Amino acid sequence: MSSDSAGPTIAEIGEFGLIDQVLAGLPTQEAVRVGPGDEDAVRVGPGDDGAVIDFSGPVVCSTDTMVEGVHFRRDWSWAHEVGRKAAAVNLADIEAMGARPVALLVAFSAPPELPASWARQCSQGLAEEAAAAGAVLVGGDMTRSGEVTIAVTALGTPAAGGPVLRSGARPGQVIALRGRVGWAAAGLVVLSRGFRSPRAVVEAQKVPQVPYGAGAEAAAAGAGALIDVSDGLLADLGHIADASDVTCDVDTGAFEVPDPLRAVAAATGSDPLALMLTGGEDHALAATFDEGRVPEGWLVIGRVRDAGPDGPGVLVDGAPWEEASGYEHFRR
Amino acid sequence: MSSDSAGPTIAEIGEFGLIDQVLAGLPTQEAVRVGPGDEDAVRVGPGDDGAVIDFSGPVVCSTDTMVEGVHFRRDWSWAHEVGRKAAAVNLADIEAMGARPVALLVAFSAPPELPASWARQCSQGLAEEAAAAGAVLVGGDMTRSGEVTIAVTALGTPAAGGPVLRSGARPGQVIALRGRVGWAAAGLVVLSRGFRSPRAVVEAQKVPQVPYGAGAEAAAAGAGALIDVSDGLLADLGHIADASDVTCDVDTGAFEVPDPLRAVAAATGSDPLALMLTGGEDHALAATFDEGRVPEGWLVIGRVRDAGPDGPGVLVDGAPWEEASGYEHFRR
Repeated sequence: MSSDSAGPTIAEIGEFGLIDQVLAGLPTQEAVRVGPGDEDAVRVGPGDDGAVIDFSGPVVCSTDTMVEGVHFRRDWSWAHEVGRKAAAVNLADIEAMGARPVALLVAFSAPPELPASWARQCSQGLAEEAAAAGAVLVGGDMTRSGEVTIAVTALGTPAAGGPVLRSGARPGQVIALRGRVGWAAAGLVVLSRGFRSPRAVVEAQKVPQVPYGAGAEAAAAGAGALIDVSDGLLADLGHIADASDVTCDVDTGAFEVPDPLRAVAAATGSDPLALMLTGGEDHALAATFDEGRVPEGWLVIGRVRDAGPDGPGVLVDGAPWEEASGYEHFRR
Repeated sequence: MSSDSAGPTIAEIGEFGLIDQVLAGLPTQEAVRVGPGDEDAVRVGPGDDGAVIDFSGPVVCSTDTMVEGVHFRRDWSWAHEVGRKAAAVNLADIEAMGARPVALLVAFSAPPELPASWARQCSQGLAEEAAAAGAVLVGGDMTRSGEVTIAVTALGTPAAGGPVLRSGARPGQVIALRGRVGWAAAGLVVLSRGFRSPRAVVEAQKVPQVPYGAGAEAAAAGAGALIDVSDGLLADLGHIADASDVTCDVDTGAFEVPDPLRAVAAATGSDPLALMLTGGEDHALAATFDEGRVPEGWLVIGRVRDAGPDGPGVLVDGAPWEEASGYEHFRR
């Protein structure tokens, strides 16, 4: 995008100059608290060999990478949006453990000719998304590479009742969803065809709306299993089914198709329900709850059943879903 | 290297198949203990949205990336060696905080045509190097990219007396070194000219020998400042000087030039001392200690002085060093 190409490149500024600029440009962050009443948990932030964070107990950690041309395109997204997305997909993994995000580390690789402003805006996006989730950037690494790659590691602390794993779903529980599904996939359909609208799905593809705090809600409500929808709802419920040795039966009657998804489906001759069931990258949270314990704001979308004679799996309205169920890297 | 190109590619095996193979192929690991007498600290390992590790207090964390063509070449190094190096450079950062490594997370990006055996051997190298440092692989991510990129995040726990930062050097302290300097740089000189010997320096370029446990030794001895030599000794002592507002004066009489470095220097018409003072990637540890408190096995190489009228900096035998002092990314 045009403003990204202004100003000096990162080669001209150099690694240490760029790090200084990035650190100076980060928004002021509130103190990060690991537990209620704690003082600022970040004892050492960026600038040393490592960061030091006080954790009073378990640490939840996860890592996820975004690669230019695979997860984002610089002609589709502003640097700030790429940064927000890189943070969001990792913060969602912490939420998906029934935990609260605390800190991010960012390993940033880029070609020397990348404008330094792009790297700065990307790191600001990372920091702002972290702040939205209650977390802070504590460290990072910058290195030269052929393509922009942003590998983020998120650290968090289990919420009351957490951590919640994929393996705790029990037959008889209901399956519930918090957040949007199908929006980012619809945005990809639109962008891939050279369009920029409906704007809402394009925005969703560029920056997911992670339901921050919902992981803690699920943990507090005694969720059996919890996951974020990154590969697609059916694929991710399949991960719960496998880990819990159950069958997840999705009731399509529970879904209301949002207008932008209906519009994209109509324009492309596709099925809006398929977008919702198989589209990834929105990072909604899906959980299983005992009947009557579903937290406010979660939509009940199905039920956990005993694994059938063929083993654990996912059903849609009681029957196998015949289409591809999600995204897998390396296969195209 | 020839055996790397055998067998199916990661595209043929697919993301989830490859993850299964990698997890199955990892060496059996001892339980990881965060503190003496603790039970296994890793409560949840790979396979969920995140890992869960019990920390009773502060967590030290750091991230560092290795990119094909920048930090390693597949025609120079076996996959196993690349994995070991990717782990070692991160484990060294934890040591450099006066801490003990506990866990690694690995974000692995690669082209679909990469042989699956390469990814497996690389992850085995990662796990074995982690084990050598007392740590374990707890999670990761695999994604598609144009070049092999391995972003590792290391977590650790401060040793008794730690963490030790870069900012605690005090005038009057001595500067001491644990580990090798110049070997990896000499190896790069050799490999860049198409040679494979002296073998010792070539091996050092491919896999650094990090002095595991030396970070804890430094912390226990009350080190003022501590860093690992990744950019080059003078450059990294410069980081200590800046953070501590002191001058680090290196005494070249303390160094004995090892035979392989002497051989490389003679063959290439270069100065072996320059290799030792400016060569990075060996990940020795450099620390400042009060006189008489230098732990066994550390070599005293200089003294901390008050910052001069020009501010903090590094001197060599009392005078400025005229040549380039270390490696910086993005600049070539």
